[in-house]
Amino acid sequence: MKKINLGIVGLGRMGFTHAENIVERIPEAVLVAVCSFVDEELQMAKTKLGVEKTYTSFENMLLDAEIDAVVIASPSGLHGEHIRLAMKKGLHVFCEKPIGVEVEDIEKTIEVVEGYPKQIFHLGFMRRYDKSYQYAKQKVDNGEIGDLTLIRCYGIDPASELENFVKFATNSKSGGLFADMAIHDIDLVRWFSGKEVKRVWAIGKNTTYPELDDLGDLETGAAMMQLEDDTMALLVAGRNAAHGYHVETELIGSKGMLRIAQEPEKNQVSIFNNQGVVRPTSQHFSERFKEAFFREMKEFILCIQDGKQPGITVYDGLESTVIANACQESVDAGKMIEISK
Amino acid sequence: MKKINLGIVGLGRMGFTHAENIVERIPEAVLVAVCSFVDEELQMAKTKLGVEKTYTSFENMLLDAEIDAVVIASPSGLHGEHIRLAMKKGLHVFCEKPIGVEVEDIEKTIEVVEGYPKQIFHLGFMRRYDKSYQYAKQKVDNGEIGDLTLIRCYGIDPASELENFVKFATNSKSGGLFADMAIHDIDLVRWFSGKEVKRVWAIGKNTTYPELDDLGDLETGAAMMQLEDDTMALLVAGRNAAHGYHVETELIGSKGMLRIAQEPEKNQVSIFNNQGVVRPTSQHFSERFKEAFFREMKEFILCIQDGKQPGITVYDGLESTVIANACQESVDAGKMIEISK
Amino acid sequence: MKKINLGIVGLGRMGFTHAENIVERIPEAVLVAVCSFVDEELQMAKTKLGVEKTYTSFENMLLDAEIDAVVIASPSGLHGEHIRLAMKKGLHVFCEKPIGVEVEDIEKTIEVVEGYPKQIFHLGFMRRYDKSYQYAKQKVDNGEIGDLTLIRCYGIDPASELENFVKFATNSKSGGLFADMAIHDIDLVRWFSGKEVKRVWAIGKNTTYPELDDLGDLETGAAMMQLEDDTMALLVAGRNAAHGYHVETELIGSKGMLRIAQEPEKNQVSIFNNQGVVRPTSQHFSERFKEAFFREMKEFILCIQDGKQPGITVYDGLESTVIANACQESVDAGKMIEISK
Amino acid sequence: MKKINLGIVGLGRMGFTHAENIVERIPEAVLVAVCSFVDEELQMAKTKLGVEKTYTSFENMLLDAEIDAVVIASPSGLHGEHIRLAMKKGLHVFCEKPIGVEVEDIEKTIEVVEGYPKQIFHLGFMRRYDKSYQYAKQKVDNGEIGDLTLIRCYGIDPASELENFVKFATNSKSGGLFADMAIHDIDLVRWFSGKEVKRVWAIGKNTTYPELDDLGDLETGAAMMQLEDDTMALLVAGRNAAHGYHVETELIGSKGMLRIAQEPEKNQVSIFNNQGVVRPTSQHFSERFKEAFFREMKEFILCIQDGKQPGITVYDGLESTVIANACQESVDAGKMIEISK
Repeated sequence: MKKINLGIVGLGRMGFTHAENIVERIPEAVLVAVCSFVDEELQMAKTKLGVEKTYTSFENMLLDAEIDAVVIASPSGLHGEHIRLAMKKGLHVFCEKPIGVEVEDIEKTIEVVEGYPKQIFHLGFMRRYDKSYQYAKQKVDNGEIGDLTLIRCYGIDPASELENFVKFATNSKSGGLFADMAIHDIDLVRWFSGKEVKRVWAIGKNTTYPELDDLGDLETGAAMMQLEDDTMALLVAGRNAAHGYHVETELIGSKGMLRIAQEPEKNQVSIFNNQGVVRPTSQHFSERFKEAFFREMKEFILCIQDGKQPGITVYDGLESTVIANACQESVDAGKMIEISK
Repeated sequence: MKKINLGIVGLGRMGFTHAENIVERIPEAVLVAVCSFVDEELQMAKTKLGVEKTYTSFENMLLDAEIDAVVIASPSGLHGEHIRLAMKKGLHVFCEKPIGVEVEDIEKTIEVVEGYPKQIFHLGFMRRYDKSYQYAKQKVDNGEIGDLTLIRCYGIDPASELENFVKFATNSKSGGLFADMAIHDIDLVRWFSGKEVKRVWAIGKNTTYPELDDLGDLETGAAMMQLEDDTMALLVAGRNAAHGYHVETELIGSKGMLRIAQEPEKNQVSIFNNQGVVRPTSQHFSERFKEAFFREMKEFILCIQDGKQPGITVYDGLESTVIANACQESVDAGKMIEISK
Repeated sequence: MKKINLGIVGLGRMGFTHAENIVERIPEAVLVAVCSFVDEELQMAKTKLGVEKTYTSFENMLLDAEIDAVVIASPSGLHGEHIRLAMKKGLHVFCEKPIGVEVEDIEKTIEVVEGYPKQIFHLGFMRRYDKSYQYAKQKVDNGEIGDLTLIRCYGIDPASELENFVKFATNSKSGGLFADMAIHDIDLVRWFSGKEVKRVWAIGKNTTYPELDDLGDLETGAAMMQLEDDTMALLVAGRNAAHGYHVETELIGSKGMLRIAQEPEKNQVSIFNNQGVVRPTSQHFSERFKEAFFREMKEFILCIQDGKQPGITVYDGLESTVIANACQESVDAGKMIEISK
Repeated sequence: MKKINLGIVGLGRMGFTHAENIVERIPEAVLVAVCSFVDEELQMAKTKLGVEKTYTSFENMLLDAEIDAVVIASPSGLHGEHIRLAMKKGLHVFCEKPIGVEVEDIEKTIEVVEGYPKQIFHLGFMRRYDKSYQYAKQKVDNGEIGDLTLIRCYGIDPASELENFVKFATNSKSGGLFADMAIHDIDLVRWFSGKEVKRVWAIGKNTTYPELDDLGDLETGAAMMQLEDDTMALLVAGRNAAHGYHVETELIGSKGMLRIAQEPEKNQVSIFNNQGVVRPTSQHFSERFKEAFFREMKEFILCIQDGKQPGITVYDGLESTVIANACQESVDAGKMIEISK
C-alpha cells in the first residue's frame, strides 16, 4: 500500500510528539516536511528525525512539499486558517485541539470542511484513543452500568508547571482554564453521554498565586453542568496537582459506576517505604497519553488509507469550544449560563 | 466514677444501635429506660439488652426514670420538642441528626439549649468520630495539604434499599434527598473548611424509578457550592449505588489532596477471581460507621463525666439544615440559591 | 447475668491492652486484680483503670482475689506454669501466645487442661478474631476459592523497633524469629488448611545488623512448608518493614485467590502528594489488631458465660510451637526438617 | 540509516507477535522473509503482513533471503541449532527464551556465539523491557530499598488455558512447570540481585487435574532459593489463575519494598458494581507484555544499528535453564538441590 506523505506545522511539544510518532513508530507514513517559525525546531527535525524539507511559511509548504496530508500543531488561534488552507489544497488534515478559539471562525472552518467530504478531517481529542477510555466507552455502550446519571471529570496539570504558567499568563492570554484544560473533559462528557449540555455554572479559586485573580485566570475551577436529558456533569480543572498530572473520569449509571484513572498510576510499581504504600503517578500529559497520541495518529493514517472518516468530527470541535466558552463566561459573570441551540 | 444513667427515645435502627453500644461496650453508662410506640421494640430492649424500664410516653420517661441523660432517636420531626423537654428537665442530651426539619423550630431549640450551658448537648454527626475522618481533619488542620480549594463529598445509599425507599416515599415525605442523605456531607464541608456556604445550585436525575419525579424526590442529585472564601464544594447524593454504601470525601488543597474512602472497602480482603481483583464494599451505614457510632456515644458519656461540651454544637445543626433546604429549593426552583446571613 | 471477675498476670504491652479492653469496653466483666513484678505497672492499673487489688505473686492472687478467671500475659517461659496453677485452682484461663516454649512443658500443660474440661481455656491467637480474617475463612470454608493450593503469610515488624530488638537480643534470648514472629502465621496455615505441616525448610538473611548473625538471630527469614496433603506454604517473617507493621496472608485455591491486608492500610485515607498516591500504613500490632484483641477477650467472657470452649485449643498451641521450633532448627542446621508425628 | 532486513523462523503466537511488531511499528526494519512448517502461517504472513519470501526450511532461508538478522521463534528444542546456523552464516540473532533445553546443547551454542562477538545476540527475556520492571530496577540499583533481602516472583497462567494445557501435556512433554513458566522469574531473580542461586527446594500440588500427577507435570508449584549471598527467593509458578495472567514480582530490601504488578491491572479502569470494586485484569502474556515485546525488538534493531550488544547474554540463557532444571529435579526427587558451579 502506498505510504502517506505528511507535513507538520508547529514543532512545539505537541508537534514534535506527533513528528516522533510518525518517524519512529508508523511505517505506513513518511514525514516529508515540517514548518515552524523557530529555526532550532527545524534543525532538530532534520538532525533527530531526518526530515528533509523545512519551511517557515505554511502556504509554501502546501505549495511545494508534495504531501498527502498535514498535521496542524500551530498556535490555537491559527488552527482555523490552517485547516481551511489545507483542505482547499486537497489535503487530509489532522488538527490538534481546539479546532478554533472563536465560534465564528470555527463555523467558517466547518463550512470549508463540509465542502471536501472525501478528505479526512481528524481532531486531536486523543483521550478517545486511550485504551482505558475505550474500554470504559464499550462498557457504557453495552449498558453495563445502565443509564448514565452523572459524569465527573478531573483534568489537573502538575504543580511543577504552575509557576511557569503564571509567568506565561502574565504576558499572554491563556484562553482561560476551561478552554485550556477542560476542553478534553467537555469532549468526554459529550462522547460518553451522546448528549448536549444545556446549562452550566462555573466557579474558581486562586490560592497559591492570588495574582491570577487580576489576570482573570484560575489555578483551580469547577463546573456543574446539566445535559439535555438531565444527566449531570461535574468538572474540576486545575493547574496545581502536587502529585502530577491528574486526569480522572467517573461515570455513574443506574447499574454501576466506572472510574478511569482514579489514581493516575505511572506504572504498575508499588513502593512500600516510610511514607506508607506509594503508587508513583504520571507527571505530564505526554507521559499519561503517550500511547494514545501514537494511536490517534495511526488511526489518522489508516483512515486516509481506507478512505473513511474518524469518529471525531468538526462539530465535536465546535461544541466543545462553545461549552468551554460558556464556563468561562459563567466564571466572569458570576452566574449560571444557558447554552442556546 | 459514678455511672451515667441513660434513657433512649426511639428504638428504630439508629436507636437500637445506640442502645446496643451502651449496653455492650460502654461500662461507664447504664441504659435504664427506653421509650417507643412500638411494643416489639420495647420487648426486644428488655429481652436482648436487659433494659428494665420501658415507656410509650417520652414525658413519662423524663418524669419517672431517674436518668441523667437522654438519647433522642425519634422521628426527625420530633427532635426539637424532645430536646427542649429534656433540656428543661435538667438532662444531658444526645440527639440524632438532624436537629430539626424547620428552621424556626431549630431556632426555638437553640434558644432553649443556650439556656442550659452546663448540660451537655451532642448532635449525631458521627462521621466526625470516624478514625479516617479524624486522621484527615488533623492533616488539613496541620496544613499538610495547604489551603483548601475544593471539597468533594459523595453520600450514596445502596441500590438494594432503593425499592423500599420508593415505597416509603410514595406514602410519606422523605424530606428530600439533600436533607436526608447530604446533611452529613454538608456538615463535613463546614467542619473541614471552617467556612459557611454562600451560594448553591443543585440538580438531580431519576432513571430507575421515574415515578420519583412525580413524588418530587430524587434517585441521584448533585450540588455545587461556593463558600464565603470561594472554596468550592461538590456534593453527590444518591440512593442507588450498585456496590453498596458509598461515602467518600475528597479535600483538594494547594499542596496536596486527601481522599477518605475512595473505595468503600468492607475490610482488608482482596479477592482475585474471574471478575478481576475485587475489593468487597460496605453495604450499609451501620456497617461503615459501626465504630464511629460507638465512639460518638463514648464521647457523649465522657463529656458528661468531664463536664465539657463536645465539638459539635446546635449551630452546626442549624446551618446544615439551612444548607440542605437551600439545595432542595434549588432543585425545586431550577435556579441558583443565595444563602442569606 | 453475673459479671465475670478477672485477674491479669503480666502488665506489659499485651497485659495492659487486655486490661484496658476489659475495663473500658467489656461491661460483662470486672477486672478485680492484677499481678506484676513491676511496681509502676501496678500503680498504673490502680490509677488509670481503677483496679483495686494488686499482687506481686501469681499464687497469692489466685488464693486471695476471688476471681473467676485469669488472663495470662506473663513472660512466655512462665505460661505453662501459670496455666497449670490457675486450672488446678478452678479458674478459666486466657493465655497469650505461645502456650509454652518447650514441647515437654506444653505436654504437661495439655495434660492438666484436659483434666478440667468444664473450665474455659483460650489461647491468644487474636488474628482469628480479626474481621478480615474471619471473612476470608468463611469464603475458604464455603469453597469460594476451591481447593487450597498454597498459603503465603508475611509477618514483619516495623523497622522503627529493629534497633531496640537488637539491643534486647544482645542481652536475652528472643526465642528466634520464627517462634517470636511467625507463630501467628503458622497458626493461620493450620487454621485455613485444616492440615498439618510435614516438612519445612527455613533460611534467613541479616543486612542492617550483621551482628545478629553472631547472636543466632534474624532480621528477615523465609520458610517453605509442605503440608500433609501437599498444600504449600510460604512464610516470610521479619523485623524490618520500613512502612510499618506488615501482616499479609494469601490463600491460593483452584478457583481463586484471597489476600488479606495486601497493603497494611492504616485507615481509609489516601494522600495525593509529591510522592504519588500514598496509603498510610499500620505501625504496630496493637494498632492493626486493636479490634481483634477486644473481640477475642469478649469471646473469652462469652464462652465463660455460655459454658462452651472456644475454637482455639491447647493442641493448636502445641502444634504451632512444634512447627516454629522446626523452622528454627532448619535455619540452624541448614537443612530441611521432617516433622514427625 | 540503512534499514535492517529480517527473517523470522517460527510463526506461532510468539513469532507472529514479533512479525507484527516489525511490520507495523518498527520503521527501521523490514521483514523480508519468514519460515514455518505450517502453510497457513506462511499465507497469513503474506496476506496480513505483506512478507514476500516464505520458506519451509530454515537453512534455505539463510542461504537465499538476503537478510541481516534472524528472529528465532521455533520450538525450544531447535533454538540451539538455529542460533548456531545463523551465527555461522554471519547474521545477528534474536532468540526467544529459552536458549535451549539441555545444558550440553546450550554450552555448544555459547561456544559458537562467543566466536562471533561482532554479531548481536539477543535473548527474549522481554520483562527486562517492561517499563514497570525497568522503573523498579533503577530504584533497586539506586539503593532506594537498601540491600536486597528477599525476592518473590509469581508467574501464573490463566485458568482459561489450563484444560488445553492438560490435553497438550498428555501428548507432548511440556518441559515442566519451572522451565516453562518460571524461567522468566528465574531471570528476574538473577537480574535484580546480580547473584547466582546456590540451593533450591521446589514442591507442587495438583488439584483441578489430578491426572497431571501421572504426567509428571504441575498445576501449581513453589520454589524457595538461597542465593550465594544468602538473599532469599520465593517463586510461585502455575497454570490456574482464575483472574487471568498473574505476573508479580516483589523486592524486599533493608530500606523498603517494591512490588511490580501486585494486581495484574488490565488498564486504569475501576468498576464499582454488585461485586464490590473490581479492577479488571490482564488475561494473557501477550496483553500484559505487548509493549515490552515491541520494545525488546526495537532494542534489537537499535543494537544492530549501533553495533553494541544488549544487556542480556547467552550466559543468562544458560543459568536460567540450569536453575529451572534444578527446580524440576527437586520436585522429582523430593529433596533440596545444590547447584554446583
